[in-house]
Amino acid sequence: MPTQFDPPSGTRDFLAREFETRERAFALIRSVFARYGFEPLATPAFERLDVLMGKYGEEGDKLIFKILRRGEHEGTGEADLALRYDLTVPLARVAAAYGSQLPVPYKRYAIGPVWRADRPGRGRYREFTQCDLDTLGSASPLADAEVICAVNDVLAGLGIGGFRFSLNSRRVLAGLLEAFGVPAGAGAGVLITLDKLDKLAPAEVTAELTGRGLPEGKAAELVAAMTAGDAAERISDALKCSEEGSAGLDEVNALLSLLAGQLPAGRVEFTPRMVRGLSYYTGPIWEVVAEGVPGSLAGGGRYDHLIAQLGGPDVPATGGSLGIERLLLMLPPGAAEEHTRLDVAVTVMDQRYAARSFAFAAAARSAGLRASVYLGASGKLGRQLKWASDQGARWSLIYGAAEDEAGTVTVRDMATGEQAQVVASELAGHLARLAAEG
Amino acid sequence: MPTQFDPPSGTRDFLAREFETRERAFALIRSVFARYGFEPLATPAFERLDVLMGKYGEEGDKLIFKILRRGEHEGTGEADLALRYDLTVPLARVAAAYGSQLPVPYKRYAIGPVWRADRPGRGRYREFTQCDLDTLGSASPLADAEVICAVNDVLAGLGIGGFRFSLNSRRVLAGLLEAFGVPAGAGAGVLITLDKLDKLAPAEVTAELTGRGLPEGKAAELVAAMTAGDAAERISDALKCSEEGSAGLDEVNALLSLLAGQLPAGRVEFTPRMVRGLSYYTGPIWEVVAEGVPGSLAGGGRYDHLIAQLGGPDVPATGGSLGIERLLLMLPPGAAEEHTRLDVAVTVMDQRYAARSFAFAAAARSAGLRASVYLGASGKLGRQLKWASDQGARWSLIYGAAEDEAGTVTVRDMATGEQAQVVASELAGHLARLAAEG
Repeated sequence: MPTQFDPPSGTRDFLAREFETRERAFALIRSVFARYGFEPLATPAFERLDVLMGKYGEEGDKLIFKILRRGEHEGTGEADLALRYDLTVPLARVAAAYGSQLPVPYKRYAIGPVWRADRPGRGRYREFTQCDLDTLGSASPLADAEVICAVNDVLAGLGIGGFRFSLNSRRVLAGLLEAFGVPAGAGAGVLITLDKLDKLAPAEVTAELTGRGLPEGKAAELVAAMTAGDAAERISDALKCSEEGSAGLDEVNALLSLLAGQLPAGRVEFTPRMVRGLSYYTGPIWEVVAEGVPGSLAGGGRYDHLIAQLGGPDVPATGGSLGIERLLLMLPPGAAEEHTRLDVAVTVMDQRYAARSFAFAAAARSAGLRASVYLGASGKLGRQLKWASDQGARWSLIYGAAEDEAGTVTVRDMATGEQAQVVASELAGHLARLAAEG
Repeated sequence: MPTQFDPPSGTRDFLAREFETRERAFALIRSVFARYGFEPLATPAFERLDVLMGKYGEEGDKLIFKILRRGEHEGTGEADLALRYDLTVPLARVAAAYGSQLPVPYKRYAIGPVWRADRPGRGRYREFTQCDLDTLGSASPLADAEVICAVNDVLAGLGIGGFRFSLNSRRVLAGLLEAFGVPAGAGAGVLITLDKLDKLAPAEVTAELTGRGLPEGKAAELVAAMTAGDAAERISDALKCSEEGSAGLDEVNALLSLLAGQLPAGRVEFTPRMVRGLSYYTGPIWEVVAEGVPGSLAGGGRYDHLIAQLGGPDVPATGGSLGIERLLLMLPPGAAEEHTRLDVAVTVMDQRYAARSFAFAAAARSAGLRASVYLGASGKLGRQLKWASDQGARWSLIYGAAEDEAGTVTVRDMATGEQAQVVASELAGHLARLAAEG
């Protein structure tokens, strides 16, 4: 039951454990991207409304969170700003704004929240993190290969198992339409239908293609070729009669040969039936799927004129996006278990010794450990050791009248209950040694 | 001149250099806070409008960015959500929502953007980062001391020089009003006036106090005591006749003695004239100032009933906030200079060898280095070396027909121009050794 204290519908609070799981994943991603020479970019949460509107189609426009004008204009009920909907339109704006100050090519990554007023559901949020990497200003297949290798390294680094890349090209798809005699006007519709081959039965797809105006024989032939065990070879053969198709095939093969040495065998496969929904791709396209996981974990491709359409300069571009929210749900067990805990919990047995206890915590921190004094009101040792245990502390420190007299501090191993008396002035060194022993 | 491609008024794009400077500072802050046992919390960018409205006073309410209702309700021109204005109201909501799941005490930090529709100006933004740490559920002065020590460690860790803490207590101020016979109704106004002692001349403050209904003699006496060289002693003496004042003084002294062992001598000072604007403080208050820097770098205090007033449970609470945008401007030179650069730039002298070049970049990455192939269209070595130099690469790799024949790769030191022939299969080891040599 949602209460008045829940975060707004479709958004989440991240408490320590979840926050740290996410941060660890982001840190790994940043380090992989940096190793490939991609640099970070952060843009504001909101953009001017006109920068965003009309960039995501009619349906997308409806999902944009708009910000009301302020002050005397608030009463107009009009918006002038809007929360960003993705990280690509802000990239186009940045490319336009800082053009000559940016390196050429501009290889950037961005990790941050975006907002969409979608109906919230299982795994679908209104505030969620996107993770993009893109290279603007290079037409080289090396740029496409770099993006794919970086995504591969991230997924492997996160411990995701059994994933592979499906590779295709928009030019292969265009050649396919040509080779199978699809009427020019029906091309986009046919691709949308072919995209359903992993969800619908071949016969259903054939029927839908026929409905789109494809002769029944051609439709059946196309579906048979796309779903055959040797689809890649059959499609390759069919493409030879199309100039565009041959060029697309060369593109795919060039990429496969660049990747061959870098990715494990079988990690990437030419997949002619893979279409990817977005119409703006112009060259190689790819998707990452994993066994038993519906949908894709990452995807991308070349989109040579999109940046200009979005208001930026007309530069060749290629990039990819990680489905980071989904990946975070797939992290191997263990990765999500770790959580910041205290190393050293310092009890306060007597307010007269509070300053000593406080200083002991500082000594533990100076040994590089996470340490805190007990901040509650109970003077009972049992209650304080319970707190130490709840905090996951490996050691607790006890300092009462006996220790004060002896000039020592009691170091208790929370796992074994063993206690040792340590000379107070030697505490930091003692704890550092214990920590080094593991 | 702002252009259509600039980020919205009062917001900023962070390109690589600035992004990394900020990230390094945030990483240091997170590690210090974690060492004290504070845990991270992240809440959504927006809250329900009713959660925020009425919490920041009339002026604050006007500065809240409101989000228009969506779909069929968009036409109403009404808002139902709003961008968060600070990190404290979300903390109160979280305390209410997750009460029993949170550790007791709940020590949390949050670093993230907040949004205020202020008039943008020099160093004043509409999207800016706040950095808060707070302990909910402890009435112990140890909790106050922890916050102060953690803030001290952050400032020292960032390399900020010449800063010190001014310490006071709201109860000292209440006692002061009592001791100097300020009429009950005039107390708040008198404190607001006293807060101007660091900006106005004593005579001006005395005049303003008289205007607020204080007898002229009392006003002059109060201002004289507050501005005397031995203000702390004179005020301490005056407070002895007030029960509240004595309790406040005990509070200040207890904190000073906890801090004495932990902070360098002179780092913290009882400062009776320090008021801090916010009315919600209930106990010790503190501020960090640095020589030559107007305003404060950090501030905080105890606010025992605020969380309840903001909709959370009624728990004792203490915390602090770092003026992170200001601190980022004060980072010592050098800190802002570093920037992700390539270690290894791999030229592509001939498209026939593109796959080899791509593999060399991968080999360099496997040696832990940042590496990228040349992604441009030029086949000229000079042009590619210029790119390598622009990227800040320490080494460039060259592989052409001669190297292909010899089975080697040329490793060029970009600083000296010296070139070495390395057997291709030994490249990763060679680069790792070079990097280890520094």
